[in-house]
Amino acid sequence: MKNELLKNEPYKVVESLKKISGDDWVTNDLSQIQGYLYDETEPLLRPEASKDCVVVKPGSPEEISKILEYANEEEISVITRGGGTGVVGGAIPTTASIILSLERLNKVVELDEKNLMITVEAGVTLADLLEVLNNQSELFFPVHPGDEGAQVGGMVATNAGGTKAVKHGIMRNHVKALEVVLPTGKIVNLGGKLLKNNMGYDLLHMMIGSEGTLGIITKVTLRLYAKSKYSGTLIISFNSQQDACNAVPAILQDGITPLAVEYMDRDISNTSAKDLGTTWPASKGSVDLLFILEENNEDELYGNSEKIVEICEKYNAVDSIIAETPKEQRHILEIRSNGYTPYRDNISDALDVAVPPADVPQYFNDIKELSLKYNNHILSLGHIADGNIHNFIMSDNGKLPSYYEELKEEIYKAAIKYGGTVTAEHGTGKTRKKHMNLQFTDDEINIMRGIRAVFDPNKILNQGDIFD
Amino acid sequence: MKNELLKNEPYKVVESLKKISGDDWVTNDLSQIQGYLYDETEPLLRPEASKDCVVVKPGSPEEISKILEYANEEEISVITRGGGTGVVGGAIPTTASIILSLERLNKVVELDEKNLMITVEAGVTLADLLEVLNNQSELFFPVHPGDEGAQVGGMVATNAGGTKAVKHGIMRNHVKALEVVLPTGKIVNLGGKLLKNNMGYDLLHMMIGSEGTLGIITKVTLRLYAKSKYSGTLIISFNSQQDACNAVPAILQDGITPLAVEYMDRDISNTSAKDLGTTWPASKGSVDLLFILEENNEDELYGNSEKIVEICEKYNAVDSIIAETPKEQRHILEIRSNGYTPYRDNISDALDVAVPPADVPQYFNDIKELSLKYNNHILSLGHIADGNIHNFIMSDNGKLPSYYEELKEEIYKAAIKYGGTVTAEHGTGKTRKKHMNLQFTDDEINIMRGIRAVFDPNKILNQGDIFD
Repeated sequence: MKNELLKNEPYKVVESLKKISGDDWVTNDLSQIQGYLYDETEPLLRPEASKDCVVVKPGSPEEISKILEYANEEEISVITRGGGTGVVGGAIPTTASIILSLERLNKVVELDEKNLMITVEAGVTLADLLEVLNNQSELFFPVHPGDEGAQVGGMVATNAGGTKAVKHGIMRNHVKALEVVLPTGKIVNLGGKLLKNNMGYDLLHMMIGSEGTLGIITKVTLRLYAKSKYSGTLIISFNSQQDACNAVPAILQDGITPLAVEYMDRDISNTSAKDLGTTWPASKGSVDLLFILEENNEDELYGNSEKIVEICEKYNAVDSIIAETPKEQRHILEIRSNGYTPYRDNISDALDVAVPPADVPQYFNDIKELSLKYNNHILSLGHIADGNIHNFIMSDNGKLPSYYEELKEEIYKAAIKYGGTVTAEHGTGKTRKKHMNLQFTDDEINIMRGIRAVFDPNKILNQGDIFD
Repeated sequence: MKNELLKNEPYKVVESLKKISGDDWVTNDLSQIQGYLYDETEPLLRPEASKDCVVVKPGSPEEISKILEYANEEEISVITRGGGTGVVGGAIPTTASIILSLERLNKVVELDEKNLMITVEAGVTLADLLEVLNNQSELFFPVHPGDEGAQVGGMVATNAGGTKAVKHGIMRNHVKALEVVLPTGKIVNLGGKLLKNNMGYDLLHMMIGSEGTLGIITKVTLRLYAKSKYSGTLIISFNSQQDACNAVPAILQDGITPLAVEYMDRDISNTSAKDLGTTWPASKGSVDLLFILEENNEDELYGNSEKIVEICEKYNAVDSIIAETPKEQRHILEIRSNGYTPYRDNISDALDVAVPPADVPQYFNDIKELSLKYNNHILSLGHIADGNIHNFIMSDNGKLPSYYEELKEEIYKAAIKYGGTVTAEHGTGKTRKKHMNLQFTDDEINIMRGIRAVFDPNKILNQGDIFD
């Protein structure tokens, strides 16, 4: 993409976009576009943004269609902006670009309780979605990637995960229909309020997780679920990572499906609690498993809690704490949610590999060895039942350590050795695309490139991402 | 595809294939290939098979790779054959073809209880899979499309559904990894024993439901689940289709997720029971809902059964029968499973549309009107909680009625009017591909064609299917 017009005569681009979306919704004033030039990628790793950008905030899919037609004509790259909560640079325009923000597509279109579904415009945030459901419905939506500023369209584009995937799975499991503006400007409706649909190829699933490279998602229909009536939280402590990890498959095999099963290094729990001015309830042992249970039946809740404790004791658990009141439960979850925050200024990178769940103990051994080898106190917390571990690579006095790239690649390779993935949740974006060949053969990457070319022949969308 | 060599000098093709797979596994003797020229498509609708075919039964993905390379060189079309249980002509070679049967890829590779997964070669049948799980494990696999002769690879290629999707979803929800021989002969491994994986485009999901047009699936890793400890079966009878259908969303909203919720016209239940030499337990009312519940907790099973009855009574249920013993449960399920059999010789077509579940009552009204309009006693049974209805179009004294195409298209259009799909389960195959444009725009179909061309530039695979 040359983006000549945008670089040389940006006012012309601004004028053309104003004709589409109106004067109020287009700007290339640096002070106004500053907030659109970065996302939540770790500051030490953020790709540098081009300042030759124009922000447009279209009010409808039809406007988006016209913007994309214009971008194709003029050969200008377009980057889609959701909530800007991504952590792999996906929303950062590294070349001169039209930044197309979905923030005005923020309406809840329909809460359809009879079909247990909700349809929202793509710019509705997770916070908005949860509020509408809380206020207007007994139904709930299970995917929660942590930052409620995430927009629903972005959550689809990145196939968001989070803690509750143990019971409810990831975004892909809940997306039923999408309105998408294709890179060529055509508007298509994929899927429907359907639980089974086998006509043609499934373009809906192709779109999920494609990180804005195949089209701009403008409307999303999600499946909803009845709320569980009873919830409980358990902390179970162990002296060894291995014992903790090995207990988890035994619990799942017994037919217990918790809402969440989180692993936490005790260092993280203590530091997080201290940061919040409180203390982590567990003191024995050195690592914890945190179980959140949601059941429709009180007996089942208590029965499952007891069984979890029993199984963990077989795996040498040294302590178990059952949070009985909602207040105690909130206290524990607050400390878990805050796990990353106190480290923020000391972290180079927060990784998100996944391995087959049964291989987590071996993977943890590899991490221990790498910690020693590089003398970097790599911490671990994560969605252990999903085999999805967040490792924090510490910074070197606020700077990227000299060995950062090498260590990161060793961690990725450790995961891949077990048939794992470089990224379970965060996505490929700009910071991982150079590692595609660790995980895929050339044949696979060529097919991905080919698919991209089918959707976006002029490579208008999200230039610099994944396959460019 | 010209298939010149196969038409003019078939012995040369036979010889070349024998060099790859050995003398015992290649034949073009009509008496031996006869069984490979049809599938379970209704006899009145079966596309005519070409007899210029060679059957090859490769013993490994490497052999398949070589066969596909050869087919590309010689421009011969290849059709993949699984269990032959499809009902839309997908496995019928309508042009001269190499029929590539997966029957020898029939080994269970690994039962991985710790990861709750099983890896099998693609030619393992559903019956084999269930037997291995029954004999060797406390885990189970939930997708059951009815015919246990189906091969696992075919179940992935067609994204099989079935009755248990209410609780467990369809094939797509359970496929974790695939080994695939691409049409060009390259062997790729997609996915992994992973519960979250966001690197690159999801080619695994592209492959699921692509009906053998994007590659030949040779190995499949499936997720398994702990068996539920208690099961129950209820028949609840109504005087009106509308009341029966309306009760279903109310049950789901209440947080009850049955294993299956089946709708049955009473005609079907009675006919099926009579065919089996028994009687259907319900006599009041004219239609039935059949609920199968599976729970881990006996209280929950009884509690949910009671709640279902209570909710159905609000929707004017006239009778409810709870099958208490396993024997009673089996009796009812046997009658349900036999629902289609007594009609087999009188059916033109068994359709499988889906609509949004809340629109089933309106859809049933449309079917009633079409029954009258065409004077065809269209029967309905189906997976009502999925909005997935099987309609039987009756034959005209063993022949396709003159209005068959017209009626079928009206039924499809009725479903699409509600945002439904032509095919919820059976797939596009050869018998539905002409209806693609009822459901998709040209832009969507062109993208599907483009994707096919990326995988299969010479259109070697499953010629005549979906996009040719």
